[in-house]
Amino acid sequence: MRLRPGFAIVPLLGILIFASPTYSQKNAELALMPMPAHVAQGEGRFLIDGSFGVGLDGTNDPVVVSAMRRFLATLTRETGIPFAGGVNASQPSFTISTTGAVKPVLQLGEDESYHLVVTATHVQLTAANPLGALHGLQTFLQLVRITPEGFGVPVVTIDDEPRFPWRGLMIDAGRHFIPVPVIERNLDGLEAVKLNVFHWHLSEDQGFRVESKLFPELTGKGSGGLFYTQKQVAEVIEYARERGIRVVPEFDMPCHTTSWLVGYPQLGSAAGPYQIVTKWGIFDGAMDPTRETTYQFLDKFLGEMTGLFPDTYFHIGGDECDGKEWDANPRIKAYMSAHGLKDDAALQAYFTGRLQKLVAGHHKIMEGWDEVLQPDTPRDVVIQSWRGQTSLALAAKQGNRGLLSTGYYIDLNQPASQHYLVDPLSGDGALLTPAQRARVLGGEATMWSEFVTPENIDSRIWPRTAAIAERLWSPQEVRDVDSMYRRLAVVSQQLEFHGLEHKHFAELMLERMSGVEDPQYLKVLAAVVQPPEGYKRGQLKDYQSFTPLNRLIDAVPPESDLGRRFNELAKLIVQGKATPEQWQLARDWLVLWRDNDAKLQPLLGQSELMEELVPLSQNLSKTAEIGLGALDDLSDHRVTEAGALQQKTAWLKDAEKPQAVLLDMVVPPVELLVQAAGSH
Amino acid sequence: MRLRPGFAIVPLLGILIFASPTYSQKNAELALMPMPAHVAQGEGRFLIDGSFGVGLDGTNDPVVVSAMRRFLATLTRETGIPFAGGVNASQPSFTISTTGAVKPVLQLGEDESYHLVVTATHVQLTAANPLGALHGLQTFLQLVRITPEGFGVPVVTIDDEPRFPWRGLMIDAGRHFIPVPVIERNLDGLEAVKLNVFHWHLSEDQGFRVESKLFPELTGKGSGGLFYTQKQVAEVIEYARERGIRVVPEFDMPCHTTSWLVGYPQLGSAAGPYQIVTKWGIFDGAMDPTRETTYQFLDKFLGEMTGLFPDTYFHIGGDECDGKEWDANPRIKAYMSAHGLKDDAALQAYFTGRLQKLVAGHHKIMEGWDEVLQPDTPRDVVIQSWRGQTSLALAAKQGNRGLLSTGYYIDLNQPASQHYLVDPLSGDGALLTPAQRARVLGGEATMWSEFVTPENIDSRIWPRTAAIAERLWSPQEVRDVDSMYRRLAVVSQQLEFHGLEHKHFAELMLERMSGVEDPQYLKVLAAVVQPPEGYKRGQLKDYQSFTPLNRLIDAVPPESDLGRRFNELAKLIVQGKATPEQWQLARDWLVLWRDNDAKLQPLLGQSELMEELVPLSQNLSKTAEIGLGALDDLSDHRVTEAGALQQKTAWLKDAEKPQAVLLDMVVPPVELLVQAAGSH
Repeated sequence: MRLRPGFAIVPLLGILIFASPTYSQKNAELALMPMPAHVAQGEGRFLIDGSFGVGLDGTNDPVVVSAMRRFLATLTRETGIPFAGGVNASQPSFTISTTGAVKPVLQLGEDESYHLVVTATHVQLTAANPLGALHGLQTFLQLVRITPEGFGVPVVTIDDEPRFPWRGLMIDAGRHFIPVPVIERNLDGLEAVKLNVFHWHLSEDQGFRVESKLFPELTGKGSGGLFYTQKQVAEVIEYARERGIRVVPEFDMPCHTTSWLVGYPQLGSAAGPYQIVTKWGIFDGAMDPTRETTYQFLDKFLGEMTGLFPDTYFHIGGDECDGKEWDANPRIKAYMSAHGLKDDAALQAYFTGRLQKLVAGHHKIMEGWDEVLQPDTPRDVVIQSWRGQTSLALAAKQGNRGLLSTGYYIDLNQPASQHYLVDPLSGDGALLTPAQRARVLGGEATMWSEFVTPENIDSRIWPRTAAIAERLWSPQEVRDVDSMYRRLAVVSQQLEFHGLEHKHFAELMLERMSGVEDPQYLKVLAAVVQPPEGYKRGQLKDYQSFTPLNRLIDAVPPESDLGRRFNELAKLIVQGKATPEQWQLARDWLVLWRDNDAKLQPLLGQSELMEELVPLSQNLSKTAEIGLGALDDLSDHRVTEAGALQQKTAWLKDAEKPQAVLLDMVVPPVELLVQAAGSH
Repeated sequence: MRLRPGFAIVPLLGILIFASPTYSQKNAELALMPMPAHVAQGEGRFLIDGSFGVGLDGTNDPVVVSAMRRFLATLTRETGIPFAGGVNASQPSFTISTTGAVKPVLQLGEDESYHLVVTATHVQLTAANPLGALHGLQTFLQLVRITPEGFGVPVVTIDDEPRFPWRGLMIDAGRHFIPVPVIERNLDGLEAVKLNVFHWHLSEDQGFRVESKLFPELTGKGSGGLFYTQKQVAEVIEYARERGIRVVPEFDMPCHTTSWLVGYPQLGSAAGPYQIVTKWGIFDGAMDPTRETTYQFLDKFLGEMTGLFPDTYFHIGGDECDGKEWDANPRIKAYMSAHGLKDDAALQAYFTGRLQKLVAGHHKIMEGWDEVLQPDTPRDVVIQSWRGQTSLALAAKQGNRGLLSTGYYIDLNQPASQHYLVDPLSGDGALLTPAQRARVLGGEATMWSEFVTPENIDSRIWPRTAAIAERLWSPQEVRDVDSMYRRLAVVSQQLEFHGLEHKHFAELMLERMSGVEDPQYLKVLAAVVQPPEGYKRGQLKDYQSFTPLNRLIDAVPPESDLGRRFNELAKLIVQGKATPEQWQLARDWLVLWRDNDAKLQPLLGQSELMEELVPLSQNLSKTAEIGLGALDDLSDHRVTEAGALQQKTAWLKDAEKPQAVLLDMVVPPVELLVQAAGSH
């Protein structure tokens, strides 16, 4: 028998791989996220086996019953144990005591507290309101671990309640349409980390995403066929309600409205006709604030949409008006001067004021991005701050309530630590009076979707959003970044058992772009690169709404865990605090990276999607080689010669730049090592 | 800054890992499965980019339109390219020409042929019947590969049609309930490999799984709450129809019926009361064939169920009657002697004859397991052969049509090659006349569910069922096992893009049982073990229907790919045909396995689910050590000393036995090496 060439057994790869740190429960810190307000650990643990059953003491509100069923289903996924007894067990090992019913429409500021007592033999979850019970169930699920005795939860008493009442995630379904199943699995994620608002950004220049029966051309001409039916919207709202999550819709006006104007050009400020926008950026299309017909249209539209979305709050957007269509329209200019509207901002303020009355007429409280804040903005309007923390403080001082999104822009590829340390009550917020502080409702992570698809949106949202969830739920003093990262790794893994695909689909994308099952050398590269922060990506390459997002930059997480860990290691070495094992580890990693390029290059040539990685892979190799040299110098107490130092420094400076729109995250720690080796 | 102990960077693992073979398209063989009847490859390739669009020439039957949409969605998952144009593109690069409409109820033996012509600039798919078009779309999807020019399909002309008209998969939803989403994703898998029958085994001693409005206690008392509503059944049937798949229901009678008797003990042959069975095996509960009320019940029941399941064929089971309840009931014994029914087989034949008339009265053709075949069985009854190929030939000779399941029992953990080489027309079938052969309709893989759950059922069905699909579709002479395994690996990866979880969930199960993300040392062990074949598992340990199936045996595939590949390598070495690289590869693998135990043991102690793996891991290490010794002897041309040989042989013989109900698949190839080293 002869093995055929196409199936020759590929030589074993003598590569080093990196294991994740094991999260030991011996560690006093429990891997909970968000960290509860009060935790008191005891001795021993509660074990979970097939006899585990949940019982209700008090309400049997359908939401609670449904939550118990979902809890058992998730617990089965976390353990592989089928629970024959199901809910309402006759001798429950887990008792939920709560009263009342979940309101048909969830309200801002409901009691979300809970009290969870785990003993070696029983679990008692108590909550004044079923919403608290939902949170307590998620806390329990986060505590489940395999142990030498089986799956168990440590003995613990937890008293918990949120710091802020408004803790949200915004998903932009306008730029890239995000189908219902993807929305729903992300709602499962929100529930898991105790977020309670899903802000659904539903219209953009690139697409109008909700069926309107009154104005069918909104989707007929403005969606490219990609939109939610009203039935789907109702299903999502109920799905969210069952998970204790409010759904706040946003229809962005008067700008970011090109998709509306394709079907209804009479709303626009220019002559039209309009086309759906297929690029990213800020566009001129804007509603005409000077025509009464605009408000007549919007009143009817709001009547329909406020009926569809039951939440008390209604987001009208209001951001990023460039005013160009207004400036170019003599009729609008004439109107402005006749009505004393001195500039575009004043015109928008006029529009917003009119809109606010319409929204109020439909018994909703208006919310808008911080541009809508004016001195005379009605006091009940909620301001979502995105251009800085100052506007949030300004709103609070002025008597308006607000929430923070500045610092929580998860589309910008910033590390979890950066989001984590942004506090709604820091900066200008720290100077507010108690009454003003009370107007700061919380915050929202914002998933703008220029560069996300249904495939990779999970990996942009998770796990980083869990860190933001902790900021908004946990006491302000919970802010140890190392602890956060330790716990985040555990939560990230658990979220896969809630059905999220952030890790799984990244693997599939690597297989797809390489055409190889489990492409190890590609994974070595993928583990240490990340996209540049901020808006750089769109500046480096031309992207449109139908540009395939199927390259390495789209597969890798926004933050390289391994890059961060190697950076910590380099710091220890430079500070003279590294153990011999840590020195060896640094060396092993650098050897892995140095030698990877030679093995990866043949693969890169086989795929049009990977050709761009050729210089990136070469650079990683060179970076690692320089790092190894620096390690040698440091361990031999040899000061790098000045010329060589300068040369290496210059090369590394250059290697900091993105290639294939990706950063080599080994460069900064190697720069640390090289500098240290040059200055001993 | 100090790294905390719980997060100390774990030392890099200096382990070797094994890359999968890359499947090169330079290979003349296309990775299609089932292999088409006629393939003619040309030069060059058709490239797929965002402008790709599909158009229809001829029918616009809803099933074809829906198939085009699904085709584009799958193509997007396979490539990451969004196709703006969607279906009915104005200038299609892919044209489907077909006529007619898909029948409301699919019929056995419809024309499934298709003709696919791929040129560098256009694709033409032609089929007389839309069902053929569905198959052609799947062939195209299997051809898509990443290339240096982008995603493409090689220039090729394919003429294809199935060898057998009945190509099925049976899923047993009785023993473990399998929820609708799992059924549906497996239907996607059937479509991908051109299987056209979903045989839905719906009742068992352990559960009755379909809502009956006439007899609500069938599920009320016989399902433990786990059953399909009639609405869900209708949805599954339509889902299958859209994929060209018939749905044949099975209600197993008169035995395997305990779950019916829990709610309706008057049907039973013993006094009752009955309880749902929670063990595996053959049980005594049986319908009473001697009472007219039994047939009155069944006539009504069949009236309801034949209305729900539109397929022409209706499976009544008929297998494995132990007759104990009949023998123990004097009234039944008296009836038998009064009616000249000489034994239990005759009584069952009497029952089956009565049942057949009822089924026919509801305008269905009866199907049954081979026990139902009697000399006077009506000619239209279809026999499903499971106890050997002989009964299939016997049925054909007698004038009955039949299909083969002997050899396709995918619950028995046999290698794909074994299933693959079983031919419905081999053995006794080879001796049939052409007219008799025409009565052999095809075959069915059978997924009995004692040891499968919704979590791991995909990994039991896939990819092996694709090999069976090829046997039933492709020309009889397509039977090269090496080729099959090469193509199977590619199809297996592609099935993940159809939504199947056979690889993904196995990974999650390893993480779950270890509590560690990406547990590399556990994976090294997992890659070379497999469950024992046949029914051994149930004999080695006591299993019940609620026993958690969350251990290594439940996570690993039924066949170890690496074990098989190492065995091939050992053969080459023994035959003196191995290259120096192959010698080195064998050595590297053995070193990996030898050294793995020391690293894995600490992990095993942390989990109750893994403690049982301690000896298995130790044995792998010892096996590998012996293998390395044999390699040394072979390469040094040294004959192993007789005493040592005997000792090693005895140890290996012992190591062949399962541990933790798992086989160490490195043992057989090491035995080869040891024997060779002892007999030079």
